[in-house]
Amino acid sequence: MTVTDSLKVAMLGGGVVGSQVARLMAENADDLAARAGARLELVGVAVRDASRPRDGIDGALLTDDPAALVARDDVDIVIEVMGGLEPTADLLLAAMSHGSSVVSANKALIATEGPMLHAAAENNSVDLYYEAAVAGAIPLLRPLRESLVGDRVRRVLGIVNGTTNYILTKMDEEGAAYDDVLAEAQRLGYAEADPTADVEGLDAAAKAAILAGLAFHSSVSLDQVSCEGISRLSQDDIAAAREAGFVVKLLAVAELVGDADGEGPEAGIVVRVHPAMVPRSHPLASVRDAYNAVFVEAEAAGQVMFYGRGAGGEPTASAILGDVVAVARNRLAGRPGPGRSDYAGLTVLPLGRATTRYAVSLVVHDRPGALAAVAQVFADGGVSLQSVRQEGGLEEGVPDAGLVVRTHLANEADLRAVVERLRALDEVKEIAGVIRVEGGPDL
Amino acid sequence: MTVTDSLKVAMLGGGVVGSQVARLMAENADDLAARAGARLELVGVAVRDASRPRDGIDGALLTDDPAALVARDDVDIVIEVMGGLEPTADLLLAAMSHGSSVVSANKALIATEGPMLHAAAENNSVDLYYEAAVAGAIPLLRPLRESLVGDRVRRVLGIVNGTTNYILTKMDEEGAAYDDVLAEAQRLGYAEADPTADVEGLDAAAKAAILAGLAFHSSVSLDQVSCEGISRLSQDDIAAAREAGFVVKLLAVAELVGDADGEGPEAGIVVRVHPAMVPRSHPLASVRDAYNAVFVEAEAAGQVMFYGRGAGGEPTASAILGDVVAVARNRLAGRPGPGRSDYAGLTVLPLGRATTRYAVSLVVHDRPGALAAVAQVFADGGVSLQSVRQEGGLEEGVPDAGLVVRTHLANEADLRAVVERLRALDEVKEIAGVIRVEGGPDL
Repeated sequence: MTVTDSLKVAMLGGGVVGSQVARLMAENADDLAARAGARLELVGVAVRDASRPRDGIDGALLTDDPAALVARDDVDIVIEVMGGLEPTADLLLAAMSHGSSVVSANKALIATEGPMLHAAAENNSVDLYYEAAVAGAIPLLRPLRESLVGDRVRRVLGIVNGTTNYILTKMDEEGAAYDDVLAEAQRLGYAEADPTADVEGLDAAAKAAILAGLAFHSSVSLDQVSCEGISRLSQDDIAAAREAGFVVKLLAVAELVGDADGEGPEAGIVVRVHPAMVPRSHPLASVRDAYNAVFVEAEAAGQVMFYGRGAGGEPTASAILGDVVAVARNRLAGRPGPGRSDYAGLTVLPLGRATTRYAVSLVVHDRPGALAAVAQVFADGGVSLQSVRQEGGLEEGVPDAGLVVRTHLANEADLRAVVERLRALDEVKEIAGVIRVEGGPDL
Repeated sequence: MTVTDSLKVAMLGGGVVGSQVARLMAENADDLAARAGARLELVGVAVRDASRPRDGIDGALLTDDPAALVARDDVDIVIEVMGGLEPTADLLLAAMSHGSSVVSANKALIATEGPMLHAAAENNSVDLYYEAAVAGAIPLLRPLRESLVGDRVRRVLGIVNGTTNYILTKMDEEGAAYDDVLAEAQRLGYAEADPTADVEGLDAAAKAAILAGLAFHSSVSLDQVSCEGISRLSQDDIAAAREAGFVVKLLAVAELVGDADGEGPEAGIVVRVHPAMVPRSHPLASVRDAYNAVFVEAEAAGQVMFYGRGAGGEPTASAILGDVVAVARNRLAGRPGPGRSDYAGLTVLPLGRATTRYAVSLVVHDRPGALAAVAQVFADGGVSLQSVRQEGGLEEGVPDAGLVVRTHLANEADLRAVVERLRALDEVKEIAGVIRVEGGPDL
């Protein structure tokens, strides 16, 4: 097969991912040409310091002027792996206004400026693809957008941040403390020097926003995602979960709530990121270290799971080049692929509207009637109990007892009201922890 | 969003899957219209007996004349869920020659007549999609064709037949005999009255051919797949695997073999379906009952896994409707999507070229030197041993000893030659079994 057409590709960013993209474009040039229908010619790579050599990138292609690169009218495809919100957004808008299609790996940018960028893509009849922004090399966005498009997704549930999953795996398997594991992860390069975006759940929240928008054909932005990270989890929390047969994972969850027929409270979606206890027997429990996995639950398809490496230069480059080939085919065919679909316009509801199960750990004064009083508060609040486990307090000289209360499916707002009432209860000395439980038999 | 365009859809077949397709098309009509960009109007369903009512299908749409249905020039999309090779192939050729795009769930047809049908699609500028033909609702073909298209796939390994996985799960977990489990599976509707296609591996082989063709951008037909089913597996085989920490699964494997640089023996692909021992710790080991799972190993992406329900009316209908929406979008855009890609033209090599690990069970005469003689045969044949386990033969009055020999990675032809030499060896009374071992640390 001889491919005579050629398409020009420019890249913004030349770090770990960019180097791998350039390397694979060179090494697999013939295959990519045959699959895309045109040779892909890298014509420029914008970096901060163009004088510093980069692995796999021809030095002659380096430039420190990204604005000039995206202003070229002869560039067909711009790959964005520079990250950040500004000036990245402006550069991509400029690229599209000059007729270039865009392939991005920038989850934060898509989760905050997605609607604006998609509008620009539509106005300029170009593509905006970003498979690499969520779960690295795992094909996830295209399956949601195209394969499951004939179905009704009810729920997306997954582990989408490798750094926190690495930390939680080590805490679970080695009994190590959070600070120690984080320090080790930083030493190994699994965590950034400033780990905030990962450990506070912001990275996962951006991915959750993107997944939710695609799954529910609605517009979901980062600030609509309820987000709680793992930095407040102690080894005690992990150990308690382990003893009860669970493992703690940072989950991203997007789901339909409310009455689809328009009765009862307003229907919509809740999108949330938080640590949760997952039963050891659940497939997500065995997703270890920096791996990612996402469950999609749809009306007709049932549960479908996607699993793989969620980050790293090579997996991310694989996802980017898949998009580049797709975009190249669209350009050769003379029209962009299917764009953003947000026709459903579902409302993003507050976390209070979520429904899940909870484990509440309390310290109570060990005296007659304490357990009954606690149980009564749950009953009054309309939260049904699955189990109550008492720990300690039966020995001589121990005046307090630990209680772990596990609920059936309950409304988040109801549960919060119960916790507030528990705090005010004489019998309760302390609420030691509240953690959600996902992946159970009734979910 | 108001959708004014409309596309006409005809369906061949109105059984379990067809009924679900019709039901979902009706129930989700507004969503499908918004996503496709046109209302999808079901205009006819060809069945054998049009007088018999079908769940979810308007009786007025039924016809017993499929040839007349596919000859309609006003039909945009033909859904094929009737199965079989003839007259199905001719009907689809007729549909395409009248300008209809085709969505099929027919793995046997695609695996045998794929090149001819794809050529017809290309000649008539229509689409031929068949996501539902492999692994039900699990998005697999589109991710291979589009998401991983910028990468180099090395290996596809999976459980793609639900009937056999159900049988093997019951044999493993309940210690039941093959015949008993098969009878129960037939009673529950998991196995056909004539189970040959499933238990002899033919259904899995058709799926393996389709996956291999897509993964390696080459033409692979059903008759090029080496195929061995599960009907000869005994409870002893399953129990022996369990004792050694393995579970037996029917696997479909497609992989690159040989020297990519053109040195050594001819490079190509081997595509095979056979039972194999999988370590309990491998993710495929926990794929139970009628579930399917497929691993794809690519150069840059690493290992990616897809998991879900591999059969059933609703999951299959979900996959079909995903394709219908994709085809509808292509028709509205005025051009078909990317077609077959077989530019790489890799040779499908015989099973002898495969490389994997093996477990060989033998009965030897329990006398000095027997083990040494057996080990020497492996050494002479160039097959390196991982472990040798002796069972029995140490008690008084037991003249024979059981040996289980596990090999390191070895060439299939070498292993077969070793087995033939073992058969001729005085010390060997019987070769009780040879089974491949997949999913190990060196694979």
